[in-house]
Amino acid sequence: MAPAAVPVVTTSELTISAMKHDLNKTTKSQLDASKLTYTFNKSPNTVPALNDPIRLEQNSTTDHMLTVKWTEKGGWEAPQLRPYGPLNLMPTASCIHYATQAFEGMKAYRGVDGKLRLFRPELNSRRMNLSSTRIALPSFPPEELEELIKAFVAVDCAKWLPDPNTFIYLRPAIIASGAALGVQKPREATLFIIAVLFPPMDSPTGLRLLASKEDMGTRAWPNGHGWSKVGANYGPTLQAQGEARERGFDQILWLLGSEGRVTEAGASNFFIVWKNKHSGRLQLVTAPLGDKIILDGVTRRSVLELARARLAHNATEACTEIQHLERVEIVEENFTIHDLVEAQQEGRLVEAFACGTAFFVAPIAFIQYVDQGLEIPMTAKTEDGGKAGPYAAAIKTWLKEIMYGRVQHPWGVVIKETGVN
Amino acid sequence: MAPAAVPVVTTSELTISAMKHDLNKTTKSQLDASKLTYTFNKSPNTVPALNDPIRLEQNSTTDHMLTVKWTEKGGWEAPQLRPYGPLNLMPTASCIHYATQAFEGMKAYRGVDGKLRLFRPELNSRRMNLSSTRIALPSFPPEELEELIKAFVAVDCAKWLPDPNTFIYLRPAIIASGAALGVQKPREATLFIIAVLFPPMDSPTGLRLLASKEDMGTRAWPNGHGWSKVGANYGPTLQAQGEARERGFDQILWLLGSEGRVTEAGASNFFIVWKNKHSGRLQLVTAPLGDKIILDGVTRRSVLELARARLAHNATEACTEIQHLERVEIVEENFTIHDLVEAQQEGRLVEAFACGTAFFVAPIAFIQYVDQGLEIPMTAKTEDGGKAGPYAAAIKTWLKEIMYGRVQHPWGVVIKETGVN
Repeated sequence: MAPAAVPVVTTSELTISAMKHDLNKTTKSQLDASKLTYTFNKSPNTVPALNDPIRLEQNSTTDHMLTVKWTEKGGWEAPQLRPYGPLNLMPTASCIHYATQAFEGMKAYRGVDGKLRLFRPELNSRRMNLSSTRIALPSFPPEELEELIKAFVAVDCAKWLPDPNTFIYLRPAIIASGAALGVQKPREATLFIIAVLFPPMDSPTGLRLLASKEDMGTRAWPNGHGWSKVGANYGPTLQAQGEARERGFDQILWLLGSEGRVTEAGASNFFIVWKNKHSGRLQLVTAPLGDKIILDGVTRRSVLELARARLAHNATEACTEIQHLERVEIVEENFTIHDLVEAQQEGRLVEAFACGTAFFVAPIAFIQYVDQGLEIPMTAKTEDGGKAGPYAAAIKTWLKEIMYGRVQHPWGVVIKETGVN
Repeated sequence: MAPAAVPVVTTSELTISAMKHDLNKTTKSQLDASKLTYTFNKSPNTVPALNDPIRLEQNSTTDHMLTVKWTEKGGWEAPQLRPYGPLNLMPTASCIHYATQAFEGMKAYRGVDGKLRLFRPELNSRRMNLSSTRIALPSFPPEELEELIKAFVAVDCAKWLPDPNTFIYLRPAIIASGAALGVQKPREATLFIIAVLFPPMDSPTGLRLLASKEDMGTRAWPNGHGWSKVGANYGPTLQAQGEARERGFDQILWLLGSEGRVTEAGASNFFIVWKNKHSGRLQLVTAPLGDKIILDGVTRRSVLELARARLAHNATEACTEIQHLERVEIVEENFTIHDLVEAQQEGRLVEAFACGTAFFVAPIAFIQYVDQGLEIPMTAKTEDGGKAGPYAAAIKTWLKEIMYGRVQHPWGVVIKETGVN
C-alpha cells in the first residue's frame, strides 16, 4: 500500500490545453448586439397608472422581451427583440434544478428634462459577465450586453415610462435553458432582458431590521459566491426573510460567524456612520469586498465614490449639502454587531442605511439583535418629505440628481429612444 | 442620541401569531395523493435500447410527468398525471432568478424477479419536504409525496423499465413557478415528478478526484444549506467541476476552510477506510451531519446502517463477505486532507469511495491535492467485473441485492404496476 509515484499535470500541458480551448472558442459566434432582430408585439398592453395597485405586485412587464440563445457548440445566436411571453423550458432544464442562473438589477429613469437615462450600465454589464461565468454559464463581451440593454429600453420605455421623475426596473438574466439533468457545466443557455413596473418607492419611515441568528442560515461565506449576482444567493435567504416579515421587520441584517460580522441588509449593502471608538473620528463604514462575501453593488460603489469626492477630508468636489455636514473618513472595513450595539449605546452611532438598485438608499430606523432593540437616529429630512440620517439624505439627493438629469453627469447615460417602429 | 427603551416582541405574542398562522393553514388544501387524476399520453414514445447512446445525455424522459400546483391562498391543488411536456414559466418566475427550487434523486429498479422496486422512498420524501421549506417553498406530508412517486412509477415503469437488473432515474422537484420578481417568499409553486433514462453505469476504473483550492469556491459551510437538496448547492460547484474535467478528473473533492476539512466528492458523500493514526484500529469514516454542511444522503445512511449491522465489532447480521473482511469501527467524524495524505503516505489508507443515488457506490482510484498525487488502493474485484476497495465492493453487493430483489429486505419496496390503462 506504499504510494506510487504519480505524474502531475505540468504547467506547460495546462497552457497547451488552455490554448486549444481558446482556439475552439474563436470558431464560435460571440455575442453581437449589431445582429439584433426586431419582431414587434401586435397586441400591446396599456400602461397602468402610477398609483395602480397592480404595480405593487412587481410582476407587470412591458410589451417586449429580448432573448439570445447560446450553445456550447455554436456560441451566441442573433439576439431577438420580440413580444413578451413564456419561456419554453422542459422539466429537465438545468436552471430549475441546479440554480444555473445569474441576473442583474438596474433601472431606466425618465428625467425632469424628459430624457431617458440608464445609471452606469457598464457596471451591471460587467458584473453580469462575472456572475455568469461564476455559475458555469458562458462569458460575453460586457459592452455587447450594454448595447442590448440600451436597444431594449429604446424600444419599450418611450411608451412604458412616460412620467418625468419615475423609473422602470430592468432585469437582464441568463439561465441554463437546455434539457440537461446531468449535474454538469451547461451546454445551452438563454440570456434575456425584461422590464418590470414598480410602484413609486421611498421608505419615509426607515427600515426595521432583524439581525440574523445562526439557525436562520448564512447568506454568504469566505471564498463562496456572495460577491456575485447568482440566484443561489437569494432563495436560501427567503425563509429567514419571511420569518422577519411575520414578526414585523422589513429585512434581515445578515451576520456572519460566531463573532457576528455585519455583512448585508436583506439583498442590499449596509452602511453606518459612527464616531470611531478609538480615534473618535467620524466615519462612513461598510464591509469590504476582499473575501468574496459582499456584493460589489453599483449603488454601494457610487455611494463610496461620491462620499470620497464630496464628503471626505480630502474631497475635491464642492456641494451645497456639505456645508451642513461634518467631513468623514470613508472606510471599507469589517465590523461586528457588538461594535454596532456598543456605538449605539454610547451615542456614537450617527445613522445607518441600506443601499441597492431595487430599494435605492434606504435609511434604517431600528435593528433587533436577540433581545436588544436598537433605535437608529434619523435626524434629517429628505427631499421627498421622509426622514433619514443626514449623510444618507445628502447621498440620496446627489444620486437622484444624476439619475433624473437634474445635473449632467457621466454616470447618467442618456438613451436615444426609438419606440416601436 | 441615547438609545430609547424599545419593546421586544414577547413569547406569548409570538405564540398567538403562530397559532393564527396555523389556523390559516388549516383552511387550505393539503397535498393529497388520493386526488390524483390521470390523462394518458396519446402519442407515446418508443423506449431506446440499453446501449442507445441517447441515454448518455441523461435527457430522455418517459411518456408522462406528474404535477401538483400550490398557491399560498388555496394550498395544494389535485395532482395530475399527464403527458410529458414543457413547463409554462414566465420570464419573471421566481425559480429562474432566485433559486427557489429543491429536488430529490432516486431510482426505480427492475429486479431479477421481474418486480419493480423503490429503495427507501420514505427517506427521499421526507428530505424533499425539509429541502422545500429550507428554500421558502411549501411543506407537505411526506407520505403523500411517497404515494405520488409510487403512482407515477406504477404507470410509466411497466413500459420504460423492461429489463431485469436495470434502473430508471426519478426526479421529484419543486419550483417557485409563479410570476414574482420581488425577492420574497414564493406565493405559488409547482411540484413535479419525472423519470429520466440513464445509461447502465458502473465505474470499473475508479474515480479520479481533484481536491478543491480556495479559488474554486466552497461547496457548503457551517449553518448554511449544504445539508439540503436545494439547487443553490449545485450550480456554484459546476465551474470548478468543469475545470476538473478539462484536467482529466471526474469530480472535485470539496475541502472546507484553511484546515482543509474533507466534506463531499462532487455531489456525493465521501467515505474512507483507514487504520487510525492514534489507535491503530481499522475505521470506516465519513464526515458528520452535525453542522449542516453534509447532505444526509440516502446511500450514505444505508452504507452506515449496513456497516453497523454487518461490519462493526458488535455486528448482529451475518454475511458471506464478512468472512474475508476485518471488522471495522464505524465513525462519523471530521478529518482533513492532511490526515488523508498522511494516511496514504504511511500506508494506512485501505480505500476510499463516494456514494450517492446517481453514481451509487463509486470507488476512488486517485486524488490530486495541489502538487501531490495520491493513488488509492483498489484491491478487490466487484461482482460486475470492476475493481474497488474490499469494503466498497461488499457494500455495493449488499445494496444491489436489496435493490434488485436478490434478497427480500424492507428497504426494497415493491410497487404494484398498473401501466397505462
